[in-house]
Amino acid sequence: MAARCDTAAVRAVLDAASRDGRDALTAPEAKLIADAYGIPVPAEALAETADEAVSFADRIGFPVVLKIVSPEIVHKTDAGGVRIGLKSGSEVRAAFRDIVANARTYDPEARIRGVQVQQMVPAGQEVIVGAVTDPTFGKIVAFGLGGVLVEVLKDITFRLAPASEDDALSMLDSIRAAEILRGVRGGAAVDRTALAGLIVRVSELAADFPEIAEVDLNPVFATAGGVMAADVRILLGGPSPAPRRQYSRDEILTSMRRLMQPRSVAVVGASNEQGKIGNSVMRNLIDGGFPGEIHPVNPRADDILGRKAYKSVTDVPGEVDVAVFAIPAKFVAAALEEVGRKGIPNAVLIPSGFAETGEHALQAEIVAIAERHGVRLLGPNIYGYYSTWQDLCATFCTPYDVKGGVALTSQSGGIGMAILGFARTTRTGVSAIVGLGNKSDLDEDDLLTWFGEDPNTTCIAMHLEDLKDGRAFVEAARATVRKKPIVVLKAGRTSAGAKAAGSHTGALAGDDAVYEDILRQAGVIRAPGLNEMLEYARALPVLPTPKGDNVVIITGAGGSGVLLSDAMVDNGLSLMEIPDDLDAAFKAFIPPFGAAGNPIDITGGEPPSTYEATIRLGMEDPRIHALVLGYWHTIVTPPMVFAELTARVVEDFRARGIEKPVVASLAGDVEVEEACAYLYERGVVAYPYTTERPVEVLGAKYKWARAAGLLGGGR
Amino acid sequence: MAARCDTAAVRAVLDAASRDGRDALTAPEAKLIADAYGIPVPAEALAETADEAVSFADRIGFPVVLKIVSPEIVHKTDAGGVRIGLKSGSEVRAAFRDIVANARTYDPEARIRGVQVQQMVPAGQEVIVGAVTDPTFGKIVAFGLGGVLVEVLKDITFRLAPASEDDALSMLDSIRAAEILRGVRGGAAVDRTALAGLIVRVSELAADFPEIAEVDLNPVFATAGGVMAADVRILLGGPSPAPRRQYSRDEILTSMRRLMQPRSVAVVGASNEQGKIGNSVMRNLIDGGFPGEIHPVNPRADDILGRKAYKSVTDVPGEVDVAVFAIPAKFVAAALEEVGRKGIPNAVLIPSGFAETGEHALQAEIVAIAERHGVRLLGPNIYGYYSTWQDLCATFCTPYDVKGGVALTSQSGGIGMAILGFARTTRTGVSAIVGLGNKSDLDEDDLLTWFGEDPNTTCIAMHLEDLKDGRAFVEAARATVRKKPIVVLKAGRTSAGAKAAGSHTGALAGDDAVYEDILRQAGVIRAPGLNEMLEYARALPVLPTPKGDNVVIITGAGGSGVLLSDAMVDNGLSLMEIPDDLDAAFKAFIPPFGAAGNPIDITGGEPPSTYEATIRLGMEDPRIHALVLGYWHTIVTPPMVFAELTARVVEDFRARGIEKPVVASLAGDVEVEEACAYLYERGVVAYPYTTERPVEVLGAKYKWARAAGLLGGGR
Repeated sequence: MAARCDTAAVRAVLDAASRDGRDALTAPEAKLIADAYGIPVPAEALAETADEAVSFADRIGFPVVLKIVSPEIVHKTDAGGVRIGLKSGSEVRAAFRDIVANARTYDPEARIRGVQVQQMVPAGQEVIVGAVTDPTFGKIVAFGLGGVLVEVLKDITFRLAPASEDDALSMLDSIRAAEILRGVRGGAAVDRTALAGLIVRVSELAADFPEIAEVDLNPVFATAGGVMAADVRILLGGPSPAPRRQYSRDEILTSMRRLMQPRSVAVVGASNEQGKIGNSVMRNLIDGGFPGEIHPVNPRADDILGRKAYKSVTDVPGEVDVAVFAIPAKFVAAALEEVGRKGIPNAVLIPSGFAETGEHALQAEIVAIAERHGVRLLGPNIYGYYSTWQDLCATFCTPYDVKGGVALTSQSGGIGMAILGFARTTRTGVSAIVGLGNKSDLDEDDLLTWFGEDPNTTCIAMHLEDLKDGRAFVEAARATVRKKPIVVLKAGRTSAGAKAAGSHTGALAGDDAVYEDILRQAGVIRAPGLNEMLEYARALPVLPTPKGDNVVIITGAGGSGVLLSDAMVDNGLSLMEIPDDLDAAFKAFIPPFGAAGNPIDITGGEPPSTYEATIRLGMEDPRIHALVLGYWHTIVTPPMVFAELTARVVEDFRARGIEKPVVASLAGDVEVEEACAYLYERGVVAYPYTTERPVEVLGAKYKWARAAGLLGGGR
Repeated sequence: MAARCDTAAVRAVLDAASRDGRDALTAPEAKLIADAYGIPVPAEALAETADEAVSFADRIGFPVVLKIVSPEIVHKTDAGGVRIGLKSGSEVRAAFRDIVANARTYDPEARIRGVQVQQMVPAGQEVIVGAVTDPTFGKIVAFGLGGVLVEVLKDITFRLAPASEDDALSMLDSIRAAEILRGVRGGAAVDRTALAGLIVRVSELAADFPEIAEVDLNPVFATAGGVMAADVRILLGGPSPAPRRQYSRDEILTSMRRLMQPRSVAVVGASNEQGKIGNSVMRNLIDGGFPGEIHPVNPRADDILGRKAYKSVTDVPGEVDVAVFAIPAKFVAAALEEVGRKGIPNAVLIPSGFAETGEHALQAEIVAIAERHGVRLLGPNIYGYYSTWQDLCATFCTPYDVKGGVALTSQSGGIGMAILGFARTTRTGVSAIVGLGNKSDLDEDDLLTWFGEDPNTTCIAMHLEDLKDGRAFVEAARATVRKKPIVVLKAGRTSAGAKAAGSHTGALAGDDAVYEDILRQAGVIRAPGLNEMLEYARALPVLPTPKGDNVVIITGAGGSGVLLSDAMVDNGLSLMEIPDDLDAAFKAFIPPFGAAGNPIDITGGEPPSTYEATIRLGMEDPRIHALVLGYWHTIVTPPMVFAELTARVVEDFRARGIEKPVVASLAGDVEVEEACAYLYERGVVAYPYTTERPVEVLGAKYKWARAAGLLGGGR
């Protein structure tokens, strides 16, 4: 709740409108609210006499505008009823008399209520400030420049409401035309503090009063001296979100721990029949080497894959942490009741045939059962989940055994399969792979809460098509990003994609501009596509965190240096300005026609010693924070020789406690593929046949380091 | 030369300025030129009497502006010497008297020359039209909206001058704020014909007179009724490009044919010593299976790798088509003289140590020798070149034997090695790989001219850092694009990249916005990065050309459908609106909860027959022009089953003469990699673990089809 604001005054206005059943506030009501929240609007007062007008003008401050107020006179200007730019009491006095006289001449029958004395809105940069209710994120505040910039170029930015002053200041820099606010073409810079303050107050107003659906200040005039909203419109109403059962952070962690680190798993619908999902899940649990208890449940079998089968989960002895469902949708509700009665905290619902096929009632039924028993649901309509450090493969896919730091989740099963295949072929170290499917209960924020605490997880990557509760996601993301990076692939970015998402899951995909801004505000790294998400997820846990912004390119191929430089700019990185002493130090190692500066072009025909000396210097000098290597395949320095020396140098420094992110682009014949694999396994993120990808993943690491506050300057 | 324009009038003005040694034209001179080229500027005339003023105003048309003209009166407004918006003869007459009287009161000593009568510039949309001289492309014309849109957002577009009317109209649509010209917020649309005409005339003016360095019309006011330039500035001078020896198209084709299809190759600096470049080149020519003559040249050997060696190329018997140089830079000039005397048309200069290491004089020397003898030079500072259909590997790399349609060229050796490695690992079908290096002579336009004619080449991909002659490139590209696609990776896109290019080759990288627009105008497909260039080059010859714009996504994974839809928008493609009958036909094959429409979501658990039936329908229906397939790995339809059925269906239709581009994204475990390779070899461009790449290459194919005029609607 905003501190300095008169919430009681706003409440009174809103209650009055509510009693009248009105969705839109009148201009005087909007002005009352603006005044209550310190939103500067032109001061005004109704004067019945010339003396009153002069006294109001003195109070408001010159210059002022005078306008006749009469119900009969609609076109005030035609009636000679408007005077602008009045600079003194005597001008006001004369104007009052003229206006009233003109009005009487214009319409002798008109009832004259008086003359409105209004502050002149100072000419300035036209901007727009507003607040709306987003279906995913709730109250959000918007800022843009006025006119065509917003209307045609959609140059507008969003933040969650309420916004902090830092948020608001960041909005001023987030629009493409940000430079205008700093003054161009001889124009003065606007008062950033005042403008940010206005954004904050509008966001607080929207956040404080749930029934305010929309606030629209358009235009606002911003000058070097302050801001003033020339027009304020406020709309009420709009649908409120359906209530959902909330779990506390402790409850989430407790049930998630039992889900991800179970001692006992029941498989509801376990089967001896090859090809059945209940058979695949059983075999994968066993073949994956899960060391805990595995209890098949099947009313028509005594023994499944050599293990005693139970008629019902209620018959399983002892505590059970997870019930994996591999039965048709229509049998889920009854079995879930039994899971609830048994006190099993997690049900993993592989079956499809719920909301995604239009069976909304069936899904609502199982959600109700689960809420009643406090059972958390994963799915339905999923492939299952992996918890690799537990050797747990509760899926109908196949086990995965490369333990590592990345937790991957997907809303779609197809994407989950792509995650598995990519991870396997690249030997990506994985802590978990989780299918979320219809997200009837557990969703990204529950998983973020857990993975944030999970010591085995050092990076989280999520494919999502929608968020059930954008605020909960942002809250969980903010808490987690301080500790580890979160990569998000938001599908349905485009209107065509969003339409496809609609036909796929029935989810209402939010406006992508809102997602983009708010995910960035939450410190999340957004992957532009599936392959990027996978590559970021693979690389981020491998790369050490940079300690500063100074990136240096060392390249044996000038051509790669150019492309790597392009990629630097594309990924928000900047080439370090090399100090003279460092430049001289590099130059000592490279041929006279090589180019120092940055990129450092060691030239093509150099022996391993030149690569080694320059990379060593790059690691050694504390002013350099990250290295981008461009290798060129020659017979003088073959790929594996380069790989071996680079890995050795990086390892030497690691042993001395010096770690910097090092990425590499290898240009050469097919031997470079083996060299890249060798380097990657040793902590140097290396790619063949591309100059973009290594810089892109370094850029992702930097984005996270900035969001986590590790590089100074905040997000 | 512009037809309707008075070039003699312009010539007279320019000659006068030239005689005075002036670089900038005066306002009256600029007006004369504007009038000569039909550039609308406010009409004006100097009236000495009120009668004259009225008569001028009648001729110019109302409203008009009157301004006092006196050398003593600088601040005309302060002197009461300006009247605007005069709508009639009587207003003009009264204003004339007032102005003159005011001026006399203001300064009784002032010499009054008369009153200027000027047409009022109509308020309208502010735009900018200009022409500049670009270091790469020469005269280019620019168009943008006025104010912050150009200054802050750089929303401006360029074309070669002279521009056609079609070019000019395309410029109106090329700016991001294009919508404004069509009328927004109740504003009227501007007169597009008049605006395009103005752009054309400015471009003609710049093109017709080499000494005009810059034309700047800023602002131009565009309204529904026409255009008017409120200010015209013209600058003269600027450096003219150094002359270079020009070869005719026939000469280029003749020497290029002998380069790419040689019968006899000499290796200058051939060596028996392993590790020497002259040894590698000899071995690669022999091991690559080149069936023509291979003549080693080495003054200190009688025999190299079993072949008779010659002291000099002049000793080699018979005609020689190509001399490959593998000797140090300092010996090149002398050997090149002998090549010239022998009448060998092509010298391939592998050695480095020329302009790229600062040895500009040495490079100039060899260029002069070559020009004198009519020897064409490839390089220096290159890896050599491959002509695969000739089994020719004249490089120090290793032979490449997958013959196919793509010709690849690179300015940088490192990128050349990446091309080779990528091609080998993906088994890309290649017609040629050519290193261009310093481009002392042969460059991209020579190669385009040859590859355009070469029947083995169906696609051309070029990495370049600069263009020696942008116009020659555009001319060659335009002629070639009608026949086959050209992919360009322009390195040095960003200022950091351009700076790196500068340190690499000493090339002056042009402004990327200019490259972007003019490469598009030439119909070239621009690859955003190295890997994209390689993938486009691999895919374009494999994909048939689409016959229309209707693309349909068929997917087994709804999640892939969403991401594929996003990728469609990102790549300028649009999802076909499926007619009702076709929708019903698809629905007949898919489960009731599957989603027809587009994407067609056949849902995840479907058997091979569902994939087959829907793909078959997609191929069969003539309203569909291209297919994007999203496969989801399941045990019901494993990857190779999907690959086999898809390849079979596509082959069936190919046999019936029905070809459409089909691309596929395979989401699944590692078996999808083999399935993708299988599909690719059979003409279906398929990728694992990515939803972006297949759509991106389809988008590239569409870009070419549009540029080649194969889809209607022109470029």
